[in-house]
Amino acid sequence: MAMSRIGILGLGLIGGSIARGLVARGHEVIGVEPDDVSREAAQREGVSVVGSVRELCALHPDLVFVAVPLRAMRESMGELALHAHADLLVTDVGSVKQPIAAMAQELGLAHRYVGAHPMAGTELAGFNASSAELLLAAPWALTITEDTPREGFLRILQLLCRDLRGRVIPLRPDVHDASVALTSHLPHVAANGLLNLVGSSEHADTAFALAAGSFRDGTRVGGTNPRRTEAMVVDNQTWVVPGIRALADELVHLADDIAAGADTSWFFDRALAAKQKALIPRPAQRALDLAALSDDEWRATLLDVGRKGDQIIALSDALVATIAE
Amino acid sequence: MAMSRIGILGLGLIGGSIARGLVARGHEVIGVEPDDVSREAAQREGVSVVGSVRELCALHPDLVFVAVPLRAMRESMGELALHAHADLLVTDVGSVKQPIAAMAQELGLAHRYVGAHPMAGTELAGFNASSAELLLAAPWALTITEDTPREGFLRILQLLCRDLRGRVIPLRPDVHDASVALTSHLPHVAANGLLNLVGSSEHADTAFALAAGSFRDGTRVGGTNPRRTEAMVVDNQTWVVPGIRALADELVHLADDIAAGADTSWFFDRALAAKQKALIPRPAQRALDLAALSDDEWRATLLDVGRKGDQIIALSDALVATIAE
Repeated sequence: MAMSRIGILGLGLIGGSIARGLVARGHEVIGVEPDDVSREAAQREGVSVVGSVRELCALHPDLVFVAVPLRAMRESMGELALHAHADLLVTDVGSVKQPIAAMAQELGLAHRYVGAHPMAGTELAGFNASSAELLLAAPWALTITEDTPREGFLRILQLLCRDLRGRVIPLRPDVHDASVALTSHLPHVAANGLLNLVGSSEHADTAFALAAGSFRDGTRVGGTNPRRTEAMVVDNQTWVVPGIRALADELVHLADDIAAGADTSWFFDRALAAKQKALIPRPAQRALDLAALSDDEWRATLLDVGRKGDQIIALSDALVATIAE
Repeated sequence: MAMSRIGILGLGLIGGSIARGLVARGHEVIGVEPDDVSREAAQREGVSVVGSVRELCALHPDLVFVAVPLRAMRESMGELALHAHADLLVTDVGSVKQPIAAMAQELGLAHRYVGAHPMAGTELAGFNASSAELLLAAPWALTITEDTPREGFLRILQLLCRDLRGRVIPLRPDVHDASVALTSHLPHVAANGLLNLVGSSEHADTAFALAAGSFRDGTRVGGTNPRRTEAMVVDNQTWVVPGIRALADELVHLADDIAAGADTSWFFDRALAAKQKALIPRPAQRALDLAALSDDEWRATLLDVGRKGDQIIALSDALVATIAE
């Protein structure tokens, strides 16, 4: 595969990490970034920087990653819709996928859009906090809809698996949003809720002094970057709100049963079963020839990979995928 | 301080770790343990083992740690009440303190009882999982009531601070139980609730494949040892049940506000404030001469240490405590 000219809107923690990884693989990376510190740090690491999406598009990149905060996504995607040349492929790294897929469709970008989301991050922000290692072996959700361009999907799959050394889970945007509500947004909400409860207790100081590993781990992602967490949670409200209510129902049910002296094994044993399922090692690998799939079946076949929780961990130049299952 | 003869009922993870630490400091340790594997492993590490509480008491230990599971506590304490000689001091390491203090009073042991609880543990059990390192620098709750014997309290404080290298937080039994409900039992409940929610989702496999750090940390203590976690949570129901309901209320309030498009900063900003409070470093130290305190004031003075979240980190032979604040 030839080296590409790749645009990145937003050179923060994730955009910066992608930029570093792609520069290291020899790609030409051109960024757009409003923050002076991040912009200058990126330039020192071999990233070209231009002043606007229009200027970026005038340089005819093959592909643009939109890595701006969710609230700035509509403006960035709108500018891309305005200035993009015919062959430009657009992807993004936003933490929700259904609203952005809808936005791409409204803006007439759907046929050139593939949504992505790397499951990686730290509590820090900005290019100076970024690193190519952050994305090493990271799971990436990569979305498929009826509009998804096959060539574009494969192109991004190749970049993520080979150049950024990621593991790709193909899925529908709604399945992504439902899944991250459960495994990312609800844990963030629970961590913040636990902190709030202790913080408002008259025994807060004593309780913090006694806090051990279960509290440290259970609240690690709480109380940091409140605006970022709030935006992430609120932007996925379609799935987060019913998820929060289901969690609250489960907790109230448990409290009722404890208070009534009733059996509570249904609560604790179910968690054991879930944990065992979550921890199943998946050492088996199989090959899947993506070039051999018909235009009718490629979507269903790839979506089936994600449905099982399998991951594409490599893609050959001949488009044979290696799948960890 | 002279070496002591110390009894330990239950040579599991915590009892075994205490035994190892005390043997290493030259104390004579005599255990009672029903499990063959743990008993024999303890003997190999220099712990004497006898067959019953009666036999142990016949050897006139100075002090007995009750380190049996909570459900076996009443039987062990009852036998101690039956066989203890006049000077025997009794402590325990149970994860709730109010019910055990009440039990000690019912059994006529209150004047010789000091409740303790080390905030340390692993997912493992049995003497073979124990280690003296498990308790190094561990915070220990040490309870004070109107009945608590001053000499006995200081004696155990000395053992915990000097011999086991722990950090001691003096507190009332009810404050302990309220605090651990918040910082240990609720995080366990939340972790199990999060696992249950994902486990029962139709997207469970995909969600587990996408799970990143927030889910791993937020559920680390979930789904392990369900019976032990269930017992710990249910035994502290006085504080855990209202705590669960308060957490559920907080979550429902958040869900309502997100759904209504209302401001949610009250939820996320409060967690930030709590986290900052939890993370305050306490590098300052002060000395407190416990020998100089009157019989009227020693309880209030020590309880004030715990109320502030300060910790006793050392105690000299002249009974001057070093307090990290």
